[in-house]
Amino acid sequence: MSLDLAAIRTAHDRIRPHIHCTPVLTSARLDAAAGGALFFKCENFQKVGAFKARGATNAVFSLTAAEAARGVATHSSGNHAAALARAARLRGIPAYIVMPANSSKTKIRAVEGYGGRITFCEPTAAAREETCARIVADTGAAMIHPFTDFRVMAGQGTAVIELLEDVPSLDTILCPVGGGGLLCGTAVAAKTLQPGIRVIAAEPTGAGDAAESFHAGHRIPVDHPHTIADGLRTSIGEPNFELIRRHVDDVVTVSEEGIVAAMRTIWETMKIIIEPSAAVPYAAIMESKVDVRDRRIGVIFSGGNVDLDALPWGLSGSA
Amino acid sequence: MSLDLAAIRTAHDRIRPHIHCTPVLTSARLDAAAGGALFFKCENFQKVGAFKARGATNAVFSLTAAEAARGVATHSSGNHAAALARAARLRGIPAYIVMPANSSKTKIRAVEGYGGRITFCEPTAAAREETCARIVADTGAAMIHPFTDFRVMAGQGTAVIELLEDVPSLDTILCPVGGGGLLCGTAVAAKTLQPGIRVIAAEPTGAGDAAESFHAGHRIPVDHPHTIADGLRTSIGEPNFELIRRHVDDVVTVSEEGIVAAMRTIWETMKIIIEPSAAVPYAAIMESKVDVRDRRIGVIFSGGNVDLDALPWGLSGSA
Repeated sequence: MSLDLAAIRTAHDRIRPHIHCTPVLTSARLDAAAGGALFFKCENFQKVGAFKARGATNAVFSLTAAEAARGVATHSSGNHAAALARAARLRGIPAYIVMPANSSKTKIRAVEGYGGRITFCEPTAAAREETCARIVADTGAAMIHPFTDFRVMAGQGTAVIELLEDVPSLDTILCPVGGGGLLCGTAVAAKTLQPGIRVIAAEPTGAGDAAESFHAGHRIPVDHPHTIADGLRTSIGEPNFELIRRHVDDVVTVSEEGIVAAMRTIWETMKIIIEPSAAVPYAAIMESKVDVRDRRIGVIFSGGNVDLDALPWGLSGSA
Repeated sequence: MSLDLAAIRTAHDRIRPHIHCTPVLTSARLDAAAGGALFFKCENFQKVGAFKARGATNAVFSLTAAEAARGVATHSSGNHAAALARAARLRGIPAYIVMPANSSKTKIRAVEGYGGRITFCEPTAAAREETCARIVADTGAAMIHPFTDFRVMAGQGTAVIELLEDVPSLDTILCPVGGGGLLCGTAVAAKTLQPGIRVIAAEPTGAGDAAESFHAGHRIPVDHPHTIADGLRTSIGEPNFELIRRHVDDVVTVSEEGIVAAMRTIWETMKIIIEPSAAVPYAAIMESKVDVRDRRIGVIFSGGNVDLDALPWGLSGSA
C-alpha cells in the first residue's frame, strides 16, 4: 500500500460526514506584515481540535466489519488518541489507548470523554510499544499508528484538498512536521493537484530531525526533543521520510522564542486559539525562513488544544 | 434625532466598505450542554477587535465635509477610542482621544497605532469630561460619545441585521449591556425586523445598573462598578435607558465566577478568543438566567481584546 491522490480523495468521501470542512481565514494585518497573502486553513476548529480527526476517522472507517469488530488500538499521549477514540465511538467499536502515566489530565479526560479504554504505561517509547503490542495480541484490535499508517496519512491529506478548493492559486503550502503524517498527506495531494506548488515543512529546532534528515538524505531520529510544540516531539517515520524526500521542497527550523511569538501574534491579531505546534509555520514566516514576499501562501493551523493554565507567556511572565 | 430601522440600514450601507461582515459560528457541544441551538455573532473578529468599529465608523462618515474637517473627539479608555481613531484615519481627519493616565499600555498603543491624538487626564469621570469639552471648544471637533450618540447606536445595530440575515428564525437575542449602545441598536433592529423576537440583555452583577434600572422603571447609575468585564463598567445612558424600556424584554445579571467560566468554556470549546464582556451573555446561559431549552438563540460576542498577560485563570491559579 502507498499514498496517492486517489487514496486521499477516497478518504475525503469516507470521512466527510464525520468531520468539519474547516474555514480558511485571512488577516489584512498579517498580510501587510509578511508582504504576501496568507491563507490559514483552520484545523484548530476541526473535531477534537486538530487535523488528527481526519486520519483517525479514515483509518477506522477503512476497516472491514470483521476487522472493526475487534476494535482499534494505538499509543499516543496527544490528539491522535482522542481522535481515534472518537472515530471508534462513531463506528461503535472499542478503542484501546495506551498512554504514558504522566500524560496531562486534559488529554486523559479527552480520551475518556470519547469512551476510549486507557491503559497506562511507563513514559518510555519501549513501554508504550510493548504495552500496545500486548493489547493487540490479546484483543485482535487493529493497530492504528499515529503517522506511519497510510490510511492515516490519506486522511490528513484531505485538509489541503479543501484548502486548494477554497483558494485555487497558491504558490506555497506551509505545514508543520512531527512524525510526518500531515506533511505526507499534504505534499502528495498538493503536488498532484498542482505540480508547480512548493510544499515547505516547518519544525522546531529543538526537534529538528526532519530538517536534518532531509538535508542529509537519510533518516536521523531525534534523541531528546526539546520544544514547547508538544505535537512535534516525535521523529519522522520511515515511510514518511521516503515520501518527504520525493514530494517536499524544503524543511526549515524555527526557535522556541519564535514559536511563542508566532502563537501570541495569531491569538492577538486573529482572535483564534492555536496550539504551539500549529504556530510553527507562521514562526517560519516571522523568522524569514521562507520567501513569502508577493506570494500566495497556504498555512495549515494544525490544532488548537492548549492548556490555558500553562500558557508560555504566563510562565515567562511569572518568572 | 432618534433611532429606527431606517437609520440602522443607512448606517449599514455607509460602513459596509470599512467593516467585516463577521461570521456566525455554532458548536454542537455547546448546543448539547444548553439544550438549545446557539448562534454566535463573532464581533471579536471585527475590525479593532470589537463591534465598536461599527458605531464609530457610522458616526465619522455621517459628518458633513465641513464638520469632518475639524475632526472628532471622545473620551474612552477602551475599544471605542481605537475604533474612533481608526474611523477618523479612514476619513483622513484628526481624532482627539482623552484617556485616563492609568489606561493599559495595550489600549494606548492601539489608539496610537491608528494615529489618534491622545490627551491624558486624571482617571475620574469629571476630568475626562472637562478635558474633552476643552478640546472640543479649542478645535471645533465633533464629540462622538461612545454610547449615547444615536449615530453610534445605529452603527452598533448593524451587527444584528447581519445575524438575522444569516439565521432568519431566532427566538431570542442575547446581548451584553454596559452603556447600552450595542443593546439599543440590537433591540430596535431585531424588534422591527421580527416583532416576536425576545431581546434579553446580560450584565455583570458587579455593574448591575441596567438590570436595577430596568426593574425599577427609572435610571439608577452604578457608583462603584466592580467587574472583570472592563467593557461593561459604565452606567447606561439616558437615551439608552428610554429605548431599553421600550424594546428590551429583560435584563439579567451574572456572577464574576460565571463570566470567567463562560470565557474559558468558549476559548476551550470553540478555540476563539473573546473578552470578558463578550462572555457575559453565555454566562447567563450557563447560570440558567435565560430559558434556552429547545430554542434558537442568537448570542453577540461583542469583542476579543484581552490582555494575554493578565488572564483571569492565570491570576487565580497563581494565588
